[in-house]
Amino acid sequence: MTRLHSYEEANERVQAVYDDLMRTRNTDYVNNLWKALANHPPTLERTWERVKTIMGQPGEIDPLVRELIYIAVSVTNNCEYCIATHSAAARAKGMSEEMFGELMAIVGLANETNRLANGYRVPVDEKYR
Amino acid sequence: MTRLHSYEEANERVQAVYDDLMRTRNTDYVNNLWKALANHPPTLERTWERVKTIMGQPGEIDPLVRELIYIAVSVTNNCEYCIATHSAAARAKGMSEEMFGELMAIVGLANETNRLANGYRVPVDEKYR
Amino acid sequence: MTRLHSYEEANERVQAVYDDLMRTRNTDYVNNLWKALANHPPTLERTWERVKTIMGQPGEIDPLVRELIYIAVSVTNNCEYCIATHSAAARAKGMSEEMFGELMAIVGLANETNRLANGYRVPVDEKYR
Amino acid sequence: MTRLHSYEEANERVQAVYDDLMRTRNTDYVNNLWKALANHPPTLERTWERVKTIMGQPGEIDPLVRELIYIAVSVTNNCEYCIATHSAAARAKGMSEEMFGELMAIVGLANETNRLANGYRVPVDEKYR
Amino acid sequence: MTRLHSYEEANERVQAVYDDLMRTRNTDYVNNLWKALANHPPTLERTWERVKTIMGQPGEIDPLVRELIYIAVSVTNNCEYCIATHSAAARAKGMSEEMFGELMAIVGLANETNRLANGYRVPVDEKYR
Amino acid sequence: MTRLHSYEEANERVQAVYDDLMRTRNTDYVNNLWKALANHPPTLERTWERVKTIMGQPGEIDPLVRELIYIAVSVTNNCEYCIATHSAAARAKGMSEEMFGELMAIVGLANETNRLANGYRVPVDEKYR
Repeated sequence: MTRLHSYEEANERVQAVYDDLMRTRNTDYVNNLWKALANHPPTLERTWERVKTIMGQPGEIDPLVRELIYIAVSVTNNCEYCIATHSAAARAKGMSEEMFGELMAIVGLANETNRLANGYRVPVDEKYR
Repeated sequence: MTRLHSYEEANERVQAVYDDLMRTRNTDYVNNLWKALANHPPTLERTWERVKTIMGQPGEIDPLVRELIYIAVSVTNNCEYCIATHSAAARAKGMSEEMFGELMAIVGLANETNRLANGYRVPVDEKYR
Repeated sequence: MTRLHSYEEANERVQAVYDDLMRTRNTDYVNNLWKALANHPPTLERTWERVKTIMGQPGEIDPLVRELIYIAVSVTNNCEYCIATHSAAARAKGMSEEMFGELMAIVGLANETNRLANGYRVPVDEKYR
Repeated sequence: MTRLHSYEEANERVQAVYDDLMRTRNTDYVNNLWKALANHPPTLERTWERVKTIMGQPGEIDPLVRELIYIAVSVTNNCEYCIATHSAAARAKGMSEEMFGELMAIVGLANETNRLANGYRVPVDEKYR
Repeated sequence: MTRLHSYEEANERVQAVYDDLMRTRNTDYVNNLWKALANHPPTLERTWERVKTIMGQPGEIDPLVRELIYIAVSVTNNCEYCIATHSAAARAKGMSEEMFGELMAIVGLANETNRLANGYRVPVDEKYR
Repeated sequence: MTRLHSYEEANERVQAVYDDLMRTRNTDYVNNLWKALANHPPTLERTWERVKTIMGQPGEIDPLVRELIYIAVSVTNNCEYCIATHSAAARAKGMSEEMFGELMAIVGLANETNRLANGYRVPVDEKYR
């Protein structure tokens, strides 16, 4: 099983990421993904930097919508860890049970119609090329 | 190559779907997916009914956001037809080039972190189970 | 672009596979997949041996049904080459347009419900474990 | 964890689906997928309607073969829930251990050859376009 | 649950594969994949033959590198069984924790950039066609 | 179609990435992926930074092996653009036709056995957990 590095066991480089993560998210909890990535500090640092920026910094897409998009990808790929943690994040940002249901309906529909388009080998319309 | 059924060649059952689609979308253009699904009218009818409802009827998720979610799935599955047509639909509903760029960044990130979670076999935290 | 090895250019080892393929399928046409795999004769030989056995030898699953299963996987993975060639093979074995439509409906449905089960993280029922 | 709605806790709209499902399948057991989808009644209703029609109504593809196709997709996508429940459904409709073994061999082969076609970027033969 | 065939319960055909596997790998342990495939002896035999050849026989790619490639695919497809067993095999052949971290970084990157190329529908450059 | 930004049309921020890329790779050619990502400069910068680091900086995995791993993922996901460009990169670093053939054999095998493990729902052996 993958070793999960607790704050106490971690070296300074890893602790710096944990500290920034807890400060940024205003929490004292570091979830398991980061404790696993701590096995390879460069990946830990790069991944946290990107998550912080892409999911968190100001932009044209609303923070809750970013979570919905993240969940859509994770459900399509069947990443249980990512579905569980980002569903929680989305709920914390205001996702209702109804909204999750609508999200699942869209994700299910797209996964279906993607295959109908594949199977019938539908050529892209001239106007959408 | 899959036969694409034009309005003129289509039977009444298929024309009824084309008519509803053009009326609902306020257009005189039927795109190739539907002309391909016309090879199997029950699938044409069911798929249109679902797309009309899931993508179009009032709900908690904004119509533009629904398109972003749809694109996220289609990019993950690499369905070129779906990416092309729904990117056009999203632009028609207000998606800017910047917004598309942010969407791609989130989709890319989730596809990456899904694999980091898989590869390190990260157990779901007790609190997110 | 991948080099496609014609019969004339191929070495004896490759020609032996082409010969067996044409004899087994009662045709004088070798399709492009094999001409591409000829770049690596061991893969050509192993793949042809397996296709011949798994798709062709007597068993409990009907030859046409084997093609339907093969198409279902290829549509899910979006392998255009495999969809095109095995749809032709299935039609040669009796697949009607209606049957292809039903197949696409099932493939679309499964791709959808797979995601509903993922997204809702549905636990396997005690009785199906 | 996703809430699973028992018959007793469910509202009338959900109970109506459970009733139809039990009647159609001649069982008194409602499996977990439906109890999870009950969190979003419109998705529950639409999904059951489609499963009932696509998997159950008369057509050109045999009911057992429909299950084999459904399993092929679910194995390719690695949906454990769907593999477990539809393998049970297939066995109830007559799938032998030998037949399941042949199915897995075809699914494995197609997943392999899909990648050989991708990797060698094999162009679709003129005659199969 | 899938029946796992122990050596003692297995028939001669299955035992012959187990014997060859233990001899080839210089171990007295047969892992669960093979005990499951024993449910369909032809698949057991064919799969073992291929694993023995493709992963084990002399060639231009180093045995440890073969394991890294195998893991890259398994992580992309999220096959937990394959990730677990081949990570162990790779460690036995010399994979360090740092090397695994670098592998995960590459796999994550490729899964991300694959989607950026899809989403932007980037045409293959003339010189790489 | 996605707009591809030539060096001349690009703004300074984009040109800085193109310059670094050409210097790092010792070439005067910028391939289409970067010209497409130039539509969203932050994604262009972050992606180039990561590709430069993960694929190029010193580490325990050999540069050619990194390309093989990248190709393995891209073939599994069927990203034609990535297969085409990274196969060229791998050849430039010494990949022979034989080595590519062995790579495809491993990728095909893993994609197959991933599904056999899924389909038979093989439990991870105690010792590999």
